[in-house]
Amino acid sequence: MAKIAILGYGTVGSGVVEVLKTNQISINRRAETDIELKYVLDLREFPGSSIEHVLTHDYMDILQDDEVDIVVEVMGGIEPAYTFVKQALERGKSVVTSNKELVAKHGPHLLEIAKEHYVNFLFEASVGGGIPIIRPLNQSLTADEIYEIEGILNGTTNYILSKMKDEGLDFDVALKEAQDLGFAERNPESDIEGHDTCRKIAILSSLAFGWHVDYENIYTEGITKITQKDMVYAKAMGMDIKLLGRCKKEGDQVCLAVIPMLIGANHPLNNVHGVFNAILIKGNVIGDVMFYGAGAGKLPTASAVVADIIDASKHKGKNIIVQWSMKKMKLMPITDGHFNYFIRVKLHQEKEGRAVIEKTFSHVEWVQVEEDPNSIGFITDTIREGDITINIEKLSKSEEIIAVESMIRLER
Amino acid sequence: MAKIAILGYGTVGSGVVEVLKTNQISINRRAETDIELKYVLDLREFPGSSIEHVLTHDYMDILQDDEVDIVVEVMGGIEPAYTFVKQALERGKSVVTSNKELVAKHGPHLLEIAKEHYVNFLFEASVGGGIPIIRPLNQSLTADEIYEIEGILNGTTNYILSKMKDEGLDFDVALKEAQDLGFAERNPESDIEGHDTCRKIAILSSLAFGWHVDYENIYTEGITKITQKDMVYAKAMGMDIKLLGRCKKEGDQVCLAVIPMLIGANHPLNNVHGVFNAILIKGNVIGDVMFYGAGAGKLPTASAVVADIIDASKHKGKNIIVQWSMKKMKLMPITDGHFNYFIRVKLHQEKEGRAVIEKTFSHVEWVQVEEDPNSIGFITDTIREGDITINIEKLSKSEEIIAVESMIRLER
Repeated sequence: MAKIAILGYGTVGSGVVEVLKTNQISINRRAETDIELKYVLDLREFPGSSIEHVLTHDYMDILQDDEVDIVVEVMGGIEPAYTFVKQALERGKSVVTSNKELVAKHGPHLLEIAKEHYVNFLFEASVGGGIPIIRPLNQSLTADEIYEIEGILNGTTNYILSKMKDEGLDFDVALKEAQDLGFAERNPESDIEGHDTCRKIAILSSLAFGWHVDYENIYTEGITKITQKDMVYAKAMGMDIKLLGRCKKEGDQVCLAVIPMLIGANHPLNNVHGVFNAILIKGNVIGDVMFYGAGAGKLPTASAVVADIIDASKHKGKNIIVQWSMKKMKLMPITDGHFNYFIRVKLHQEKEGRAVIEKTFSHVEWVQVEEDPNSIGFITDTIREGDITINIEKLSKSEEIIAVESMIRLER
Repeated sequence: MAKIAILGYGTVGSGVVEVLKTNQISINRRAETDIELKYVLDLREFPGSSIEHVLTHDYMDILQDDEVDIVVEVMGGIEPAYTFVKQALERGKSVVTSNKELVAKHGPHLLEIAKEHYVNFLFEASVGGGIPIIRPLNQSLTADEIYEIEGILNGTTNYILSKMKDEGLDFDVALKEAQDLGFAERNPESDIEGHDTCRKIAILSSLAFGWHVDYENIYTEGITKITQKDMVYAKAMGMDIKLLGRCKKEGDQVCLAVIPMLIGANHPLNNVHGVFNAILIKGNVIGDVMFYGAGAGKLPTASAVVADIIDASKHKGKNIIVQWSMKKMKLMPITDGHFNYFIRVKLHQEKEGRAVIEKTFSHVEWVQVEEDPNSIGFITDTIREGDITINIEKLSKSEEIIAVESMIRLER
């Protein structure tokens, strides 16, 4: 018998209760014991609900009950989650969480405490919802030196970008639609400004390299500046715009960024639409592997949480070692990173404008669309980010160019 | 220190040696011990090669050496692999293998022996090359009841089909090209007749359901009957033809088959081209998840083998439980399975021919292509396989129809 307590009866928490009930028989068979829900912690009351008899408002009930083997933290946010999780681990209880903020900020510290107490701190659901990615990174891709991770890690922004592309909607309209359908929060900042993706790529990079990536040091751009005009050019190039969490080794440094990118038709991430997530990992021996699935949602996320509960129960008294040092990884400044760029400019005269651009960049590929006769787009060779900034400034100052309208990094 | 012996110095075996050397430092860090290659078993000599000093021709050297913790079987075929693996497990050595035939045939028995001796029998590389799929099935998708698996599990056939579609090549020409490039064997039967896919889907289904799927009971069609004309119609429908290993629950029965299928543009497997593999898994709570990567090749396969070596070394003396009973799973006869079908017929007169087809099938979608003016294609509703056979026979006997030229199952 493994007794569990769930902290927070919101979307994920109620999903966990539902999954445990729906698949009870096979879950218990795989856990090799019966999983029993002993407590749900929530400040609210749920009169008449199935969890009424296990509801508590006091975390001490859970912490001090030595029958509770596994604490499931699905409240979100740093506090009180951090204090609760720390206390549980110190008390010899394993913790399963879906809380990306908590994991990104305190992951290595909590892993250390878990190790000291022969219990486990598991967080499969913190990245990619139901997609198995944390366990494969820790246990399957171990023969490789990973040199690149690219992920569509936020379903809300991917839904908005898909709508902009497929239906020609403007950003604001697509966002409003996502909000109306419940795919975006009323306060969408964390998604559309890239903060959510930022925490997730920090977790994945930390696990891939074994050092701690401080998410506050990751260069982060959202999708709020992407316009319908950008989409028109993307379509003309047969490309798609996706918000990527991206981590790439350049020499012995690592370039980490959250950025919207144009990606080519044959790129494995190109086919990932709507609220789906996908993570592409490149290793020096395995080559490219990709993991795809529902990146959020009540049941997919609960599926990952419950898989962790099963794992925690199977590893009672045995710590599963995760290599994630508290030592901070030094990141390459974004200005030293190298990208290809798509740049769109408004010109006075096409011929003269082109000449200025060709003088600034050694080699470009032109992109023109009927819908935008006064502008021209071009794709650059691979250039250092710091240099592109200088070159864009040069163009902006040129008399032949009215304005540099947009710059999006690009990968085929 | 974990000492290993590799049985077979072919493509995969030499790949394992290469990976262990290339990523030695990170591999040892993740294994939490030094992995040392003590023997390579091969009947051949390799004078001057790096493995010369560890080469043996006698398996007894390995079996009787109690320093050897892990035996890596990468010879392929049933014998002597089966005997060697069995002896190693009984002697208390863990075994890692890439041998799909061995796993499909003797998997549950060898897992049982491993369990009895507190060692492990690991086979991540037996399906999907480098793609992590065995471990995710066993350890990550545990909260779910899986109800469908669809996999592009054979890179050779996927390469041939991609070439036929993209370059308009006939099957024979595409096969010849694959052979010339080393993507297909001189004797390609196991790939193109679907036998390789058959063993792999048997392994995946066994793990998903916990019962033993006997691959000899799986309905298996290859791709040898797929013609360029089929590809023309596929393109007209915006679809693609892929050889799938497919396992689907229908009620409380399971329909297993290896069949070429037409799949729609938005199907997650549609974007898997060339020698890449992908496995789509559907669970009752997680929804759809897909795993994608290089399904074969020296280094990707070796990457999976080495990840298993690391896992075996970390679990010394502890058996990782895998649920795969020796009890055989009863499969639904293919005639009871349900599919949508694309059928192509040659007609005397279009109007009369259509009338016969419309009388035979309650509802069809017509597909016509300029390149094939005397024939017509149509997509049926979902129909029982047994009934489609009867209906096709009816059409064949009709005076209005010259011939039923092809039948391919279809999924959007």
